[in-house]
Amino acid sequence: MDVTAVGLHRVLEPAGVLPQAARRLDPDPRIRPDEVRVRVERLNLDAASYRQLHTAHGGDPGAIRDEVLAIISERGKMHNPVTGSGGMLVGVVDETGPRSPLGLKPGDRIATLVSLTLTPLAVDDGLARWDGRSEQIPTSGHAILFARSIAAVLPADLPVPLALSVMDVCGAPALTSRVVAGLDAPVVAVLGAAGKSGSLSLAAARRAGAARTIGLVPTEEEERRLAATGLADRVVRADARDPVAVATALGEPADVTVVCVDVPGCEHGAILATAPGGTVVFFSMATSFPAAALGAEGLAADVTMLVGNGYVPGHAELALDLIRGEPGVRALFTAREGRSSAE
Amino acid sequence: MDVTAVGLHRVLEPAGVLPQAARRLDPDPRIRPDEVRVRVERLNLDAASYRQLHTAHGGDPGAIRDEVLAIISERGKMHNPVTGSGGMLVGVVDETGPRSPLGLKPGDRIATLVSLTLTPLAVDDGLARWDGRSEQIPTSGHAILFARSIAAVLPADLPVPLALSVMDVCGAPALTSRVVAGLDAPVVAVLGAAGKSGSLSLAAARRAGAARTIGLVPTEEEERRLAATGLADRVVRADARDPVAVATALGEPADVTVVCVDVPGCEHGAILATAPGGTVVFFSMATSFPAAALGAEGLAADVTMLVGNGYVPGHAELALDLIRGEPGVRALFTAREGRSSAE
Repeated sequence: MDVTAVGLHRVLEPAGVLPQAARRLDPDPRIRPDEVRVRVERLNLDAASYRQLHTAHGGDPGAIRDEVLAIISERGKMHNPVTGSGGMLVGVVDETGPRSPLGLKPGDRIATLVSLTLTPLAVDDGLARWDGRSEQIPTSGHAILFARSIAAVLPADLPVPLALSVMDVCGAPALTSRVVAGLDAPVVAVLGAAGKSGSLSLAAARRAGAARTIGLVPTEEEERRLAATGLADRVVRADARDPVAVATALGEPADVTVVCVDVPGCEHGAILATAPGGTVVFFSMATSFPAAALGAEGLAADVTMLVGNGYVPGHAELALDLIRGEPGVRALFTAREGRSSAE
Repeated sequence: MDVTAVGLHRVLEPAGVLPQAARRLDPDPRIRPDEVRVRVERLNLDAASYRQLHTAHGGDPGAIRDEVLAIISERGKMHNPVTGSGGMLVGVVDETGPRSPLGLKPGDRIATLVSLTLTPLAVDDGLARWDGRSEQIPTSGHAILFARSIAAVLPADLPVPLALSVMDVCGAPALTSRVVAGLDAPVVAVLGAAGKSGSLSLAAARRAGAARTIGLVPTEEEERRLAATGLADRVVRADARDPVAVATALGEPADVTVVCVDVPGCEHGAILATAPGGTVVFFSMATSFPAAALGAEGLAADVTMLVGNGYVPGHAELALDLIRGEPGVRALFTAREGRSSAE
């Protein structure tokens, strides 16, 4: 067991846990031989984390900014203690240790594909350039990558914010693709289908051989926007937290149900919507383990339930291919970015 | 969508959620045509719930009893608000509606195989006969089963407390069996292997074709007891919350890792212990969804992670067969019951 590879030496407390489980990490800029230091340019909070902060502070951007800054300085990482989630970052490689296996060189502009919850991080500008109004935070500082971290060099043909948004959720289309490809032309339902991970998952499901794709969205506006992209064979509308409404709106049991809704309470609808013998893939960080486990039991639902693993080999490449090749996905991403900056 | 079948009409608040997600259920003893009323004899809290109550009240049995009573009277169900988990019950069928599909008749002694978190329940004896010292609660009152509930008639050849203990965790061996049988002679590691779900899962894994089984336990005493049963090819000792210790103790990557430890913080050890391409099955209700999802991502671990669904068709029969046919499993269960009552 190589403890340096997974970053154990950066854990300040409690001793012995992995960096993601730590209360505090050590963001010392001096690197070990297998580490990499990155000059941070931008943080991208995960959607569940930003939403929680936004709600907790009644949308006050100054208060949101202060809390993010406090979390980073107290924990040595951007790890929202309420949601347990983080996000990712973009930066430029500053120094690479001689034994780093990541294949990076100084000057590479990269995105980290491991969560901010386990990435040692320090910021030095007080987040002064961030208005607190969206999950993308322009900033400066440094972060540390371990030997077993994952980072991808940003593609030259896509705007940085777009590539970052795509890579942030690239585990979802990759795992959806793997699950769908392992079945015989399944019916695939995506809950939260007009969002980032949702639209990528829809596109991935179709490419992987879904017989039919159904996208479920909460509002008339999203319904219209998703329908316009043609990404789903059917677009339906319901509150994903209302199990009966979800099952009724879909109208047929799904063989694969992909949950991309970043609010709590969507487990039961997903289970109820899934055919016996089918699979539910939970990607939302707002998923409750007991709600899923006991919900399936309580409904006598013989469904396979997967924890959406953010890592599938080749996930970044697959997601970037989708954004390049599927104008519908790109349109939804671009619209979303536009709304975020305009808010 | 038949809303009566899943018990929606029993939800008092919030409106529209399934019974498991409800804050309060209506335990009105009058049944609908597809319901069944059961005269309750015994509740069996799930291990994570009892442990939380025990810790929260410093082991004070009177305080534990008072809190369980308060939960049941406030919520109309035994649903621990901290752990989100419940347990199961044993009772005698009192009245069956003419359209109940469960195949039960008045006088049948049954165990419910759906969680107490979704079972309308009222007790009428103030839990006076429970000493608060174990998770098995002798009591009286009534409970309601829905059309889509699951209940099993208790076998005549096994003591009631033993059958109840077995059926409480019967989802674990059933899903373990299914996962192992779908692979080619995998190496199977069980964390928390001397407990109820752990020992059943070990036995199920061997029957389903595991090449080797490894049982991980926390203490020397459990190591000795599990080794004596012969249920595991190897028995090793480590704190399941210490990822490096777990991986080191196992000594080889597992193709399937089954998590049956009912304390928080075991996600990372399980992921680190699992071979690339392998499967982790989480049965503990103390599992954190974000810790699992982000932990795998943070370790760049390409593992399939399953939410341990408490329902697999035939699960009760499979577990009862194991307790009948595997003296090692029965010995562990009996020793455990003995310790519980002697505590």
